[in-house]
Amino acid sequence: MTEDAPRWLTDRERQAWLALYAVSGLLPAALDADLFRRARITLFDYHVLAMLSEAEGRSLPMSELASRTNASLSRLSHVVKKLEQRGWVSRTPSLADARVTTAALSEEGMAALEGLAPDHVESVRKVVFDCLSDKDVADLERVGKKVLARLDPCNGILGPNEAP
Amino acid sequence: MTEDAPRWLTDRERQAWLALYAVSGLLPAALDADLFRRARITLFDYHVLAMLSEAEGRSLPMSELASRTNASLSRLSHVVKKLEQRGWVSRTPSLADARVTTAALSEEGMAALEGLAPDHVESVRKVVFDCLSDKDVADLERVGKKVLARLDPCNGILGPNEAP
Repeated sequence: MTEDAPRWLTDRERQAWLALYAVSGLLPAALDADLFRRARITLFDYHVLAMLSEAEGRSLPMSELASRTNASLSRLSHVVKKLEQRGWVSRTPSLADARVTTAALSEEGMAALEGLAPDHVESVRKVVFDCLSDKDVADLERVGKKVLARLDPCNGILGPNEAP
Repeated sequence: MTEDAPRWLTDRERQAWLALYAVSGLLPAALDADLFRRARITLFDYHVLAMLSEAEGRSLPMSELASRTNASLSRLSHVVKKLEQRGWVSRTPSLADARVTTAALSEEGMAALEGLAPDHVESVRKVVFDCLSDKDVADLERVGKKVLARLDPCNGILGPNEAP
């Protein structure tokens, strides 16, 4: 498919790529391990609960929740079903449009999240932020958002000037 | 477990964290899609082939290959078995120590990798490097390696001054 000579990575790009690839693979696993030991949930499950907790009325249409958790609707549906069985989330057809399903965080789900949050943020600090200076954090945000804008131009965390 | 008040993330840390979390989730999926369409392999499969191609004699002990691909031995074994069935990799007991298994890239595996590499590097450029300046790449390498040093202090891409 590529007609011209391949644009191989430079040494520096290769180093940056290997670091990003390794972090992308290892980070979820490291945080999963803590959450799974404490509550039998994954980092993705946690992120679903957290995104619902921050939404108005602690509920979101499934399509919006999928976007905020960077997941396909089918992956999200599978996980929400699991969280529903624990009584942490409920799904109901939207009042405005019966074709739209809304996911809502229950009181039990909110209590579970509040119980997990202090240790989870401590884990995130330990693997990411404790080793970074203020400049590092600013650089991580800037470069991370540039890459995110390529991967998911409509991602909600991108500001109006950060989307391409 | 946490005795003191939780060290919640600042606004900037939260933005950096959400960007990193989103990129970690979306990046493998974006590159998987291309590779799967073209060769029915995942980004992880590709990385296994690439790490073998760069090793002396195009072979590595399974434990070393696991380390270079940021994977558990059980995950790697599963993938190497699959690549063996395609004739791209072979596994043999090490001559020096029969308890050690060595994985080697075959001629067919090398040819497959060489066929995939030009388009793969183009995909990596498209989602990561085409949108980054030289300074961004240097910052990504620096910050990425700092986080990697927390996640995997012995990772082979860390230089002597980068490991903690």
